[in-house]
Amino acid sequence: MQAPNRVYVHGYDPLESTRLQDQARTLSELLHADTSYPPGSSVLEVGCGVGAQTVTLARNSPDAKITSIDLSATSLAQARVKTEAAGITNVLFQQADIFASPFDAESFDHIFVCFVLEHLTRPAEALAILGRLLKPGGTITLIEGDHGSAYFYPLSDAAQAAINCQIHLQRAAGGNALIGRQLYPLLRQSGFDDVRVSPRMVYVDSSRPDLMDGFTRKTFTAMIEGVREAAIRAKLIEPDAFDSGVAALYRTAEADGVFCYTFFKGTGQKRR
Amino acid sequence: MQAPNRVYVHGYDPLESTRLQDQARTLSELLHADTSYPPGSSVLEVGCGVGAQTVTLARNSPDAKITSIDLSATSLAQARVKTEAAGITNVLFQQADIFASPFDAESFDHIFVCFVLEHLTRPAEALAILGRLLKPGGTITLIEGDHGSAYFYPLSDAAQAAINCQIHLQRAAGGNALIGRQLYPLLRQSGFDDVRVSPRMVYVDSSRPDLMDGFTRKTFTAMIEGVREAAIRAKLIEPDAFDSGVAALYRTAEADGVFCYTFFKGTGQKRR
Repeated sequence: MQAPNRVYVHGYDPLESTRLQDQARTLSELLHADTSYPPGSSVLEVGCGVGAQTVTLARNSPDAKITSIDLSATSLAQARVKTEAAGITNVLFQQADIFASPFDAESFDHIFVCFVLEHLTRPAEALAILGRLLKPGGTITLIEGDHGSAYFYPLSDAAQAAINCQIHLQRAAGGNALIGRQLYPLLRQSGFDDVRVSPRMVYVDSSRPDLMDGFTRKTFTAMIEGVREAAIRAKLIEPDAFDSGVAALYRTAEADGVFCYTFFKGTGQKRR
Repeated sequence: MQAPNRVYVHGYDPLESTRLQDQARTLSELLHADTSYPPGSSVLEVGCGVGAQTVTLARNSPDAKITSIDLSATSLAQARVKTEAAGITNVLFQQADIFASPFDAESFDHIFVCFVLEHLTRPAEALAILGRLLKPGGTITLIEGDHGSAYFYPLSDAAQAAINCQIHLQRAAGGNALIGRQLYPLLRQSGFDDVRVSPRMVYVDSSRPDLMDGFTRKTFTAMIEGVREAAIRAKLIEPDAFDSGVAALYRTAEADGVFCYTFFKGTGQKRR
């Protein structure tokens, strides 16, 4: 298999940004409910993108001072519009690269990183850099998915093949779609103490029609569907085979279908 | 691939029965804590085997009248010894086949079935039969694993190949090692109302040494290791490849390793 000509990084086109926002609305309780920072604390959100998580983060910590950074000025502009529309006033947006950080050491009480490490070639190095930005005793919180955690009923090799295209493309782009399971060793290897990781499993059957629609169809399957052209261009799969796989994924959202996926949330503390 | 000469059914040899008891001790809280039957209610435990779940079931419902059945007289004898040693007095053991049930229709208030459906060729038919044994308004509770829910760090194709041998052997024996994800449609198709399924995910990293030892090593990896001879005899895998896979599974229980597995618990009610 060869690498795709056009590197695929999700979060950077309009359909993708709609998907990420749907995802945040559907999953925000599951992923974010247990993250709240004290009044007056300074929080760095790394890789905020279009602000899909920023509104929830800011609402759950209304008196914290949040700095949300991203590489992309376009994404930051959307994030500003989104947070202003939501009446959020405690977020400062700033264009920045964590590998060339403009911040002084020990600038932040807490750091929050959601759906970012999966895109990085050197996630452990990024975490070590972020650790230096934390004050002693400060915390880092990571949230990542893991596409190897997806399984479903009815069983389908075609669906698995389509998912494998996404995993392959993300790897070819330097990322890792299977990073969720790896948060514990990454945090430990990057020098954090008191590392705790908890899985956040999304289990979907037809007793939960909101999740069938919001997660199985509009989040996960839409994401896989979104790599169709890149997967075909990279000759990872034939068009018919890919389409069969996507159809099989939609099939898991019918009355007798089941879909499972797990996000991982990890926290660590900088040594005092 | 051909079917194994000697059919593999776990739970029917001494090492396996030790493993199942270790599993029950390690996981009983996760799987059983939310099952408690009212005083005086009649409960049928189907396929109690060596009583690995019976002690917990009986302790959580000390004033229910439990009837625990199994096909195997040998297993029932072990289950009797085990429950007597635990001081359990509310369980009656009986040798019986659910496909040739000695019980009258509407004999039980509740039915409990744990790690049994995975071994049956006709699980939906078994559930329909059990439904007839329930009084109107009575409940059925199912607990099953799903070996397709196992994933881990470090990644290993060899480990996956060894797991696939177990899945294949269980299928060749008429069972289904991936049945956990299927509980919702099975209960619905068998005519139960108010069907609810919840996943019980076991997440193991080195902050949880008891689970690394009790679950990753002694439950899951030991179970896979237990099919070595059958897998080789069935020519599913070369001995060296299987051993590499098992070594890779043990590797996930080292300091930087992670292991994930999910059980599914489902309940349904018989129409009043």
